Amino acid sequence: MNATEYAIIVAGGKGTRIKSKLPKQFLELKGLPILMHTLQAFYRYSSSIKIILVLPEDDFETWEGLCKKHNFSQPLILQKGGDSRFQSVKNGLDKIDSDGLVAIHDGVRPLVSEDIIGASFRLAAVHQCAVASVRLKDSIRMTDQDNTKAVDRSKFRLIQTPQTFQVDLIKNAYRVKEDASFTDDASVAEYSGHIISLFEGSYENIKITTPEDLIVAEALMRK
Amino acid sequence: MNATEYAIIVAGGKGTRIKSKLPKQFLELKGLPILMHTLQAFYRYSSSIKIILVLPEDDFETWEGLCKKHNFSQPLILQKGGDSRFQSVKNGLDKIDSDGLVAIHDGVRPLVSEDIIGASFRLAAVHQCAVASVRLKDSIRMTDQDNTKAVDRSKFRLIQTPQTFQVDLIKNAYRVKEDASFTDDASVAEYSGHIISLFEGSYENIKITTPEDLIVAEALMRK
Repeated sequence: MNATEYAIIVAGGKGTRIKSKLPKQFLELKGLPILMHTLQAFYRYSSSIKIILVLPEDDFETWEGLCKKHNFSQPLILQKGGDSRFQSVKNGLDKIDSDGLVAIHDGVRPLVSEDIIGASFRLAAVHQCAVASVRLKDSIRMTDQDNTKAVDRSKFRLIQTPQTFQVDLIKNAYRVKEDASFTDDASVAEYSGHIISLFEGSYENIKITTPEDLIVAEALMRK
Repeated sequence: MNATEYAIIVAGGKGTRIKSKLPKQFLELKGLPILMHTLQAFYRYSSSIKIILVLPEDDFETWEGLCKKHNFSQPLILQKGGDSRFQSVKNGLDKIDSDGLVAIHDGVRPLVSEDIIGASFRLAAVHQCAVASVRLKDSIRMTDQDNTKAVDRSKFRLIQTPQTFQVDLIKNAYRVKEDASFTDDASVAEYSGHIISLFEGSYENIKITTPEDLIVAEALMRK
């Protein structure tokens, strides 16, 4: 029997960087809120996936209004977010009460493909964890006081989501005290001593955080 | 008196990654070859800038045909490229016979703004060198045998072009033997012991290397 598959979609952003009153996850891409595109990517991957959507409690009403407006009636568990991404993911994990695998994904990465979601579950079943990443296209330098230093870009990977884990592993990892170095779920799991396995994500799987990103996402979606 | 301003535009790509018979610098964006957009950005910055365009010799005829087709008659010095980016830049530097400042820029970064070009010259006049860079939006991990390790993304910068230098400094730096670690001009200058000063580039200043990049560039240009 296959493991139960969960997804936690984290959408806690306040839209400050994108200069909009509406939190960025609700901005429209081709007539549909970004967040709905993201959720649909997961439902396209599997109609039986269990999705936990983590939103700031203040945004519940906006979300329900958007669901009505767009006739969005996919089943999901709504959970309130915390004061940080760490707290929001932790709240999401609290809604999972069985074994299985969980893909943790940014609500503002609507261009994630079914292939990438599938690969993350398949690899996490084998390696306990699977984190989407891409190679660097540009040179990279390390800043070091007043100077900067070239580093070998082939040794680095840019990290995306989904970051997919065995449920027990990540629930246990999230029992630690929050730390500023936890920028994603992989860093939380690493802190608990787990080996972090990466797999090839996609350059198209962008995180929408600026107005330019919205234009880029629209263009990639039209393709 | 202000220093003479040069630009070396390096366009040696063969278009393998972009799946096109035409080298990628000649592909059209909004009806104009990518490379012409790049050159025009520099002429918009200054009509008196001295531009050295480095192209593979095999592409000279294609280039001349495109200039005729698009009525492109801006003054520039055409120089043949070498077997590597290092050799091409070196060939470009050979065409400079006076003091001044030189901005070295990828032919396939057509979205560079006048502001960024201007900042690079202004800062290089003070710091001897000025390299465009942006902060990382995503988490980053270092690969390390079978494991990977989170690193603090705030300590890293993605490097772009223009990379602008005092002419003497960079001509001297390029006298070294070519090394595989030279991924850009800053790494050549660093090898000669120079401090590399970075300045804030732009996320829009993308390098076009994949078909997706072309779509993204077109969308950003239409904005």
